[in-house]
Amino acid sequence: MSLTNSSPLEVAKAASISSRSLAILPTNARNDALTAIHHALQKSKDTILAANAKDLELATKAAEEGELSHSVLKRLDLGRKGKWEDMLQGILDVRDLGDPVNKTTLRTRLDDGLELERVTCPIGVLLIIFEARPEVIANIASLAIKSGNAAILKGGKETTLSFQAISTTISNALTNTLVPNTSVQLLTTRDVVASLLGLDKYVDLVIPRGSNELVRYIKDNTRIPVLGHADGLCSIYIHRDADKSMAVKILVDAKLGYPAACNAVETLLVDEAALSTILPEVASVLLEKGVSLRCDAASKAALSSSLTKSQATILQDATEEDYMTEFLAPILAIKTIPTPPDASPCTSCSLAIAHINAHSSKHTDAILTSSKEIAEQFQSSVDSACVFWNTSTRMADGMRFGFGTEVGISTNKIHARGPVGLEGLMIYKYRINGTGQVTGEYGEGGKQWKHERLLLQD
Amino acid sequence: MSLTNSSPLEVAKAASISSRSLAILPTNARNDALTAIHHALQKSKDTILAANAKDLELATKAAEEGELSHSVLKRLDLGRKGKWEDMLQGILDVRDLGDPVNKTTLRTRLDDGLELERVTCPIGVLLIIFEARPEVIANIASLAIKSGNAAILKGGKETTLSFQAISTTISNALTNTLVPNTSVQLLTTRDVVASLLGLDKYVDLVIPRGSNELVRYIKDNTRIPVLGHADGLCSIYIHRDADKSMAVKILVDAKLGYPAACNAVETLLVDEAALSTILPEVASVLLEKGVSLRCDAASKAALSSSLTKSQATILQDATEEDYMTEFLAPILAIKTIPTPPDASPCTSCSLAIAHINAHSSKHTDAILTSSKEIAEQFQSSVDSACVFWNTSTRMADGMRFGFGTEVGISTNKIHARGPVGLEGLMIYKYRINGTGQVTGEYGEGGKQWKHERLLLQD
Repeated sequence: MSLTNSSPLEVAKAASISSRSLAILPTNARNDALTAIHHALQKSKDTILAANAKDLELATKAAEEGELSHSVLKRLDLGRKGKWEDMLQGILDVRDLGDPVNKTTLRTRLDDGLELERVTCPIGVLLIIFEARPEVIANIASLAIKSGNAAILKGGKETTLSFQAISTTISNALTNTLVPNTSVQLLTTRDVVASLLGLDKYVDLVIPRGSNELVRYIKDNTRIPVLGHADGLCSIYIHRDADKSMAVKILVDAKLGYPAACNAVETLLVDEAALSTILPEVASVLLEKGVSLRCDAASKAALSSSLTKSQATILQDATEEDYMTEFLAPILAIKTIPTPPDASPCTSCSLAIAHINAHSSKHTDAILTSSKEIAEQFQSSVDSACVFWNTSTRMADGMRFGFGTEVGISTNKIHARGPVGLEGLMIYKYRINGTGQVTGEYGEGGKQWKHERLLLQD
Repeated sequence: MSLTNSSPLEVAKAASISSRSLAILPTNARNDALTAIHHALQKSKDTILAANAKDLELATKAAEEGELSHSVLKRLDLGRKGKWEDMLQGILDVRDLGDPVNKTTLRTRLDDGLELERVTCPIGVLLIIFEARPEVIANIASLAIKSGNAAILKGGKETTLSFQAISTTISNALTNTLVPNTSVQLLTTRDVVASLLGLDKYVDLVIPRGSNELVRYIKDNTRIPVLGHADGLCSIYIHRDADKSMAVKILVDAKLGYPAACNAVETLLVDEAALSTILPEVASVLLEKGVSLRCDAASKAALSSSLTKSQATILQDATEEDYMTEFLAPILAIKTIPTPPDASPCTSCSLAIAHINAHSSKHTDAILTSSKEIAEQFQSSVDSACVFWNTSTRMADGMRFGFGTEVGISTNKIHARGPVGLEGLMIYKYRINGTGQVTGEYGEGGKQWKHERLLLQD
């Protein structure tokens, strides 16, 4: 890894060239580099934590002066219990994942002595832009090296000193490995990013991790494909036959587990037939835990008559805007899904689906129901990356999915969707091994294609 | 299919809504619609061919006045031998492909009663813009319906009457099927395209099929992902140990099989050690067949001393520009790959690879060699969608690959690369079926994730 002050074009070209060498390194060369990084970081712990302490000192001052939020401050601290160890363990975890490179995913005999293969390969050059969180740099560097992709990194300015200390350590560690030093480059100035976004000849994919303003800015300013999500507007639909205590438990987790997370629930849809049976207990527990509830008329009326007076008075009125807002805070918008004239549960579910497809950010949506058919209807019809039945929206996470780690969560409709692990950093190429065949020999009156699917050797 | 004069927003919204219904139709409903389209077209053959004849008449006039190229004219004619039958057969071929929708590609037990599944689903709404070729409309409509995607189509103005006749027929046929009529919409005016490119909320993927000007215009004017290729700058590298007669046969096919195709070869790289052994015969045959050869100094010198005088005099000098030009004509740029001081074949191959990675359009590149090691070096290091050994670049084609048909060829680095069949029109969603689990229960001191890979039922 190099800490670079080079011009954007030099950075991008260097990344592009080193990506070609990195892409063909054998598995153990990439794994050995991760081991080397792990050991070097372990050795430099004191230096890095000292740098981090300085970052923290400056940030604390900024927070006191109201220039930085306390939640950012909290994420800065590498010295917090378990954080350093988690960062180091993360590197080994990535190393120990299966190698995603050079896997054959299709084999076809086109003709005798003419074989087609589809083989996975790295995408090329990734530009990864993230905010705060000093440990992310080690995580991303590991993922890039493991997947054979060159990476250009830009972190938040609040973590400058920590990043510099970490990247110097990683850079020194890489010197004794086969991984080219410029395959991971750290940008030190922000203005370079704008220029890099124009270099689509060299940069293959941009991955922003941060606020939705950051993601939107990037999407609006580049022709390079962007992987990620701007909003995480997740909803949960409580169907009339949902289990009440399950609903309470799931809503508490989804809303309060980490309200600032993109997979936290923001909108609660309630089947009209569940307004007086399930909603009161859910609402009462959430209110007790400090959640502001923004209700439509029907749900407010139902709750007003069933909650205690003191709870009923703090209910708020929802506006249309609330159903399109990612609160990232202990606020929940509640909307009633009317029971249709035919009272069919399937029609109610359709109305919930329609609301979600029109309002959600296609990130994660969940249904609570005891009916398999209703769940199936919901999961097949909701057009979101993650569609869950009887569990919390916060399950949408690469670690929880068993991917080892994640690059981020994508709401894109192509390439990779939902939590993105190593697989999302891969593409493929088609190889044909022939023995002199040409296309003109095939077709009418000529040779015939065999198109025989061959087994994959795994 | 509807022939639409609606506003771009209405078109896009209608597509988005119908895409949700289409996405959940069972396999046989989508297949039945293709059968219905096939039968309807068969019945309307006379009407459609009459409309096509009128298009042809107008186009012939335009060609005579020099306003239209003869190659476009040739592609317009649906009455040409076999074309109508191929178009109809294509619909049945697509129908008979395996259903790409709703295939489970990953199953993981996260915990008891908590199962993660990754299931394929359609992308959503495709905007497909193509030039001339009236049969493409039937082909694309079939692919869209089979893959469960809604499609908005815009064809070239030279085929307006043919398109209208075909789409009216398809529209009537769909009326008696479960496929919503607005899931395939034909745009009749060009100016609508610009507005649609701005509707990234409703349109998920743009697929341009046509000139590189068209593709570039689209890439420059939308935030919607674009699938396709602007250039097809393909090269062939002749290594010193290549088989001479194989080289002649492959170059003739790759250059002359269809010079206007994107998979035709444009640059020939020749190992210095093959300049006097293999190149002369290749050059002689190509010259005989009317190919203009643009040579660098070394190849020109070698050929001048080995070709007949009359052939040698028509050799042209290559400029740097020629190695970055997609001629789409019987012209071939020739460049010598110097034998390095160490004379290592592997170093020569590296130089050829470096030229290709710097100049090619990442579409298709081929090596001719009798060495498996050299071929492996080339195929793993060249960063192109298709990397071939001892066969023609023209093999890069969905039909030849056994995909049944293709949406186009992609030089993108993400999602789908190379010839794109039905699989390239799919994405996936993650489903979790739980029994009330929440994330807060897992982790330190709590429950542990099982992360057990489950077998796919296929």
